[in-house]
Amino acid sequence: MTVTITAFESSPDRGRGLARDMRVRWALEEVGQPYEVRLVSFAALKKPAHLSLHPFGQIPTYEDGDLALFESGAIVLHIAERHAGLLPDDADARARAIMWMFAALSTVEPPIVEHSMAFLVERDKPWYAERQPLLDQRVRTRLDELSRRLGDADWLDGAFSAGDLMMVTVLRRLERSGLLEEFPNIAAYIARGEARPAYKRAFADQLAVFTNASAG
Amino acid sequence: MTVTITAFESSPDRGRGLARDMRVRWALEEVGQPYEVRLVSFAALKKPAHLSLHPFGQIPTYEDGDLALFESGAIVLHIAERHAGLLPDDADARARAIMWMFAALSTVEPPIVEHSMAFLVERDKPWYAERQPLLDQRVRTRLDELSRRLGDADWLDGAFSAGDLMMVTVLRRLERSGLLEEFPNIAAYIARGEARPAYKRAFADQLAVFTNASAG
Repeated sequence: MTVTITAFESSPDRGRGLARDMRVRWALEEVGQPYEVRLVSFAALKKPAHLSLHPFGQIPTYEDGDLALFESGAIVLHIAERHAGLLPDDADARARAIMWMFAALSTVEPPIVEHSMAFLVERDKPWYAERQPLLDQRVRTRLDELSRRLGDADWLDGAFSAGDLMMVTVLRRLERSGLLEEFPNIAAYIARGEARPAYKRAFADQLAVFTNASAG
Repeated sequence: MTVTITAFESSPDRGRGLARDMRVRWALEEVGQPYEVRLVSFAALKKPAHLSLHPFGQIPTYEDGDLALFESGAIVLHIAERHAGLLPDDADARARAIMWMFAALSTVEPPIVEHSMAFLVERDKPWYAERQPLLDQRVRTRLDELSRRLGDADWLDGAFSAGDLMMVTVLRRLERSGLLEEFPNIAAYIARGEARPAYKRAFADQLAVFTNASAG
């Protein structure tokens, strides 16, 4: 039985690896599991066939036999629990790796998404310029706290884990914000993630989808 | 060894059970585990002693022997994995229950937090009134999708699980928004959660902290 995930037929990030299928691709590459990809158009996201898989009409989804999952966090955790390579063996260290997954998604990602969304949705509004420093500051507060905890460590808690995988993909959304330059240890942390062979394979695969769609 | 969690010394919600320690208290009550609570003042949240436990300076935290965790999602999942009562035995159903925890925290909660934050932080700004319908609509979209998936079921996927616990606590943040009234099945779902004996015990305990703080 081959795992099938969904991804955007034409990703709005133009192949920069910021869509959430990248997290699942990277996790599957880290644990050495093959997978197939079903591409979904924007129009199809909100149609019944896809909504039956993902009630919020997003990507990615994950299908393996009778099991169907949505939410990139849940999918990466499921992969990490079933295959060696993304969670430590020690029970306490394992709980802390999962904690960092939740921290990435619940605490670090929301202000980053708001920061991007304001640009996409509100940049023509009269308040955009005045609100932007507020949004910058919310992101900067989280980066400052994360930077202090990370210090000069390579990864958040011992060896690379699913927590780092999730945190790096969340932080990469800031790559054009100018904010990462204020935190050199976070920039170096992201670069360490991007240098992993599994990351590179996943990135190349998602980029190929966009390149093929553009050429098609 | 007794579990110790942290909670606000004086919760900004004035005992309405909207602070994130409520999730952990409820989970511990569902599985029948005793716990102790260490109260933290706002000033202490950002001081080194608490930051060593929680790098983002929030509550709750969870300590059990050598293990220290932060992030309510990670703590509830840890409790659910170690004690019967919050996750199904069937492996696929268990993965779906965890999926709903991530959906509550990553997909449903962020627009709800933005909706509340705008009131707290930006209600004196000239753009507040014009932005509010945008924020309402973002929440309404998620509620509409959730309402369609829930239908007339009691819980999100079979029996009550940690996924429902998390979703109910996230949705309760909307109790004064006027938005829940548009989705009667979601209002009834929240009421089912609030009617559980474990919920009631947890709610009473967090309310007692606020009442005592106010009287002190």
